[in-house]
Amino acid sequence: MRQVAKQCVNYGQRVQNSVFECVLDAAKFREVQHKLEKIIDVEKDSLRFYLLGNNYKNKVEHIGAKASFDVEDTLII
Amino acid sequence: MRQVAKQCVNYGQRVQNSVFECVLDAAKFREVQHKLEKIIDVEKDSLRFYLLGNNYKNKVEHIGAKASFDVEDTLII
Repeated sequence: MRQVAKQCVNYGQRVQNSVFECVLDAAKFREVQHKLEKIIDVEKDSLRFYLLGNNYKNKVEHIGAKASFDVEDTLII
Repeated sequence: MRQVAKQCVNYGQRVQNSVFECVLDAAKFREVQHKLEKIIDVEKDSLRFYLLGNNYKNKVEHIGAKASFDVEDTLII
């Protein structure tokens, strides 16, 4: 999954160990999704994508350390 | 964070190590949020909540192992 992390940081922020928040338009999202799909072992690994949409800032709430990142659009986990 | 996990599984599904998908109405969400806030050390720990809304099923995409969970409404990470 290190490979996946390496890819994801190119497009966004790591907010937790296996959680990345990325700003991607629809086309870029599909491109990244395909890249990640080729990296992982689909029998063993899993990826969840949460599409927050343009209004993402109102959909993310943060409590605790490391104040919120300015995330946009798509979330890749 | 084990306490947080213990709480979260009462309301939803663990989809990854530190990712839970929960179905909560607005009032229940605030209640859970407060509970979790009291559990964590806000100086050290962090919680991110992603509110997917009623149309959540169209906002979650899964690739790989462990087919998608039937998540609803709010996501707690």
